[in-house]
Amino acid sequence: MTEINDALETIFSADSEIYRNRGFMRRVGYGDRPALVNIDLANAWTREGNPFTCDGMDVIIPGVQRLLAAGRAKGIPIVFTTTAYAVTEGPNTDMGIWHHKIPVEVLKLGTEAVAIDERIAPEPGEHVIVKKFASAFHGTYLAGFLRAAGVDTVIITGVTMAGCVRHTTEDAIGLGFRPIVVRECVGDRVAGAVEWNLFDIDAKFGDVEPIESVLDYLERIAAFSEAGAAAGTGRD
Amino acid sequence: MTEINDALETIFSADSEIYRNRGFMRRVGYGDRPALVNIDLANAWTREGNPFTCDGMDVIIPGVQRLLAAGRAKGIPIVFTTTAYAVTEGPNTDMGIWHHKIPVEVLKLGTEAVAIDERIAPEPGEHVIVKKFASAFHGTYLAGFLRAAGVDTVIITGVTMAGCVRHTTEDAIGLGFRPIVVRECVGDRVAGAVEWNLFDIDAKFGDVEPIESVLDYLERIAAFSEAGAAAGTGRD
Amino acid sequence: MTEINDALETIFSADSEIYRNRGFMRRVGYGDRPALVNIDLANAWTREGNPFTCDGMDVIIPGVQRLLAAGRAKGIPIVFTTTAYAVTEGPNTDMGIWHHKIPVEVLKLGTEAVAIDERIAPEPGEHVIVKKFASAFHGTYLAGFLRAAGVDTVIITGVTMAGCVRHTTEDAIGLGFRPIVVRECVGDRVAGAVEWNLFDIDAKFGDVEPIESVLDYLERIAAFSEAGAAAGTGRD
Amino acid sequence: MTEINDALETIFSADSEIYRNRGFMRRVGYGDRPALVNIDLANAWTREGNPFTCDGMDVIIPGVQRLLAAGRAKGIPIVFTTTAYAVTEGPNTDMGIWHHKIPVEVLKLGTEAVAIDERIAPEPGEHVIVKKFASAFHGTYLAGFLRAAGVDTVIITGVTMAGCVRHTTEDAIGLGFRPIVVRECVGDRVAGAVEWNLFDIDAKFGDVEPIESVLDYLERIAAFSEAGAAAGTGRD
Repeated sequence: MTEINDALETIFSADSEIYRNRGFMRRVGYGDRPALVNIDLANAWTREGNPFTCDGMDVIIPGVQRLLAAGRAKGIPIVFTTTAYAVTEGPNTDMGIWHHKIPVEVLKLGTEAVAIDERIAPEPGEHVIVKKFASAFHGTYLAGFLRAAGVDTVIITGVTMAGCVRHTTEDAIGLGFRPIVVRECVGDRVAGAVEWNLFDIDAKFGDVEPIESVLDYLERIAAFSEAGAAAGTGRD
Repeated sequence: MTEINDALETIFSADSEIYRNRGFMRRVGYGDRPALVNIDLANAWTREGNPFTCDGMDVIIPGVQRLLAAGRAKGIPIVFTTTAYAVTEGPNTDMGIWHHKIPVEVLKLGTEAVAIDERIAPEPGEHVIVKKFASAFHGTYLAGFLRAAGVDTVIITGVTMAGCVRHTTEDAIGLGFRPIVVRECVGDRVAGAVEWNLFDIDAKFGDVEPIESVLDYLERIAAFSEAGAAAGTGRD
Repeated sequence: MTEINDALETIFSADSEIYRNRGFMRRVGYGDRPALVNIDLANAWTREGNPFTCDGMDVIIPGVQRLLAAGRAKGIPIVFTTTAYAVTEGPNTDMGIWHHKIPVEVLKLGTEAVAIDERIAPEPGEHVIVKKFASAFHGTYLAGFLRAAGVDTVIITGVTMAGCVRHTTEDAIGLGFRPIVVRECVGDRVAGAVEWNLFDIDAKFGDVEPIESVLDYLERIAAFSEAGAAAGTGRD
Repeated sequence: MTEINDALETIFSADSEIYRNRGFMRRVGYGDRPALVNIDLANAWTREGNPFTCDGMDVIIPGVQRLLAAGRAKGIPIVFTTTAYAVTEGPNTDMGIWHHKIPVEVLKLGTEAVAIDERIAPEPGEHVIVKKFASAFHGTYLAGFLRAAGVDTVIITGVTMAGCVRHTTEDAIGLGFRPIVVRECVGDRVAGAVEWNLFDIDAKFGDVEPIESVLDYLERIAAFSEAGAAAGTGRD
């Protein structure tokens, strides 16, 4: 794959010059109140043997473990998503028309396949959002929840880079949140998809940051109970 | 309550004249492909002893049973909603800020209180959507699901009229669906709320129809398998 | 109308007792960073002679003028909405199916009828959002804009109480904003509609506050430039 | 660029094998009632000299002209989008936080730059939707409009492939519409972006089809007035 990556780097380098000359590739930067949103790190994606299995879990899982520890230390909102369906047969399915494109019919609600990987198990008070489509915001309560919690920044990890992670990032900035994608904590199942999607995102939709930068940031912010969520304190 | 209803009827009569003179109170009418959406007919609302308990279940439940039978006979999409929360303590709750207004903290996800009333139990292939706010469309996959199933008309039942039924109806017409509210199958917990909200809705947002009209309509339509959902048949 | 109002007060009093006993009618309260959202105070609603003409402008307009002055003094986001349509004939109209219910076909985009009333004319830097349906949030950029500006509270004025003001308020709380409806600054065109809709809202969706309370609040808050919108300062 | 394209083709070929083995890359297919949605073919993107200028207009514009003619012949809904901002200075901007990433501040509402290219000028009855973010569905009335018009298929053209076209396609399938992206009628401003984004989309979100296939399809469908939009005929 070295040759492929070399070829991609050549393209990205030329493209970046155009983008920079034209004022793209700016930084959205970190805000004051982040949430950590982990996309589809459920067994169908993190373990072997499923059509949705992704690569790179030996790096992604330990990275997410570090982010979870840092986020929990500050009491920030922590969200996990999974994609699962209650009705996978017949015309009235919650898969919409997505099963005409990808094999979502294997993602049955309530099965082990769609449960969050126990290596990064959600703790009480954390959210597991079941979504039906790629974006964590699409058809879910995520945006309203984050807004009510006073969140201004969304730290994004998970899979797949070409699907749910990318769509979530695009939606986040449109909804008014600063998207930060953690470079070492996103993955996919086909070659190149991580690279070209991170490239597009960093040019246009959110900042792609190394995990050490994100951990530094989480170290710096005030704990949530001290920071005082504007909409969470119920004053008067 | 007779005096109160008389007073309301007096107001509605005067208001209706203004509305009719100005071209309001038109009929949206029935479309070709309906779905049946039953709002919050879970035990917290349909049984005694909960802050959310509503009146009128002796009429609402049998009415919904008839609608379910008629809808199932034609294979139309059938949806039940409930309102329930995974995190009811601390700042990072999925109640958003609604618990600052109403006692949603009693609606805990996974409890009997938020399960659909067994007298109108969902069957396999029907949808139970857990929502966090009033509208069945807000933060849920309902709109995309209905659109993918080729639905153009939403038949609405349930509670409460002043809350979730009304908000669902308002959203439905904005999203491009014809809202039909079944007069005998909606309820509330305080006097007058059913009447004035049905009045507002029939003037502006959807048609309020007697159950016999809706049952006649369901009798007339083609069964869903024959009608051919544009987006559900997967042609090619 | 005295008798009618007496009858409504009798109902509201009985209903309020039930609501209070059950834990409804709580206060959402004011947050730290409000926006002022003025619903459909355009000529079709504020001036005589249109099907959409509303009552009470002799109180509403001066009230909104005071709120505008107070809000502008603090640099808070100020939004005006209007409802207008580009294509009012043929099957492919942006009226969706709403013209089957109410006479929206008279609200033509670009006409004087749908322009904001010049007595409360928008100033540079303020927003005029053209919506197609009742809620100011439905199919518009409002929610994302407010979140990006760090807003946690939405002060709502305008018309109609039974339509666009109510739907906007319901959406606001679901989207994570604290809704404050200004009692003297909302109106309608039929008797009773203001009263029963304010009653429902104060019980379930937002706080109905007298204008003096809202002006006091606007006096107290920090100016926006000082308060530092989390998402508006571009730190990095 | 031949070498670059060769490198990309090598990656795509390997990736496609994985996708096909796992059941991805299926066809969503054409539905019965399409709309034509042309993304951001306004002067800032289609003409020289703007930071947003894209390549390939010598092929894209004639292609869109052919699609417009074919779509108009059948009376299908035709939509153009542009991206433009009313308030490009100060904290309360409708750019949200996107100007921290890309130079949207040059896209001022009402200027020639954001007007649709006159070579593909909208005709009366067609829609020009001003959006604030990448997706044509995000914060706009598009989804409700298409549903009310009975549309089940969205034919997508325009720019940029890495931004607005991609995000629109992702949203379309989640909202229940069959996305068809016209291969010859999409573009971008940096090398590779068209190719890798079309690859991702065809694998997961919509069908990428050559223009001749789309023109054949538009030739085959019933005219809209005959087909009878379920929600557009006002039967009752």
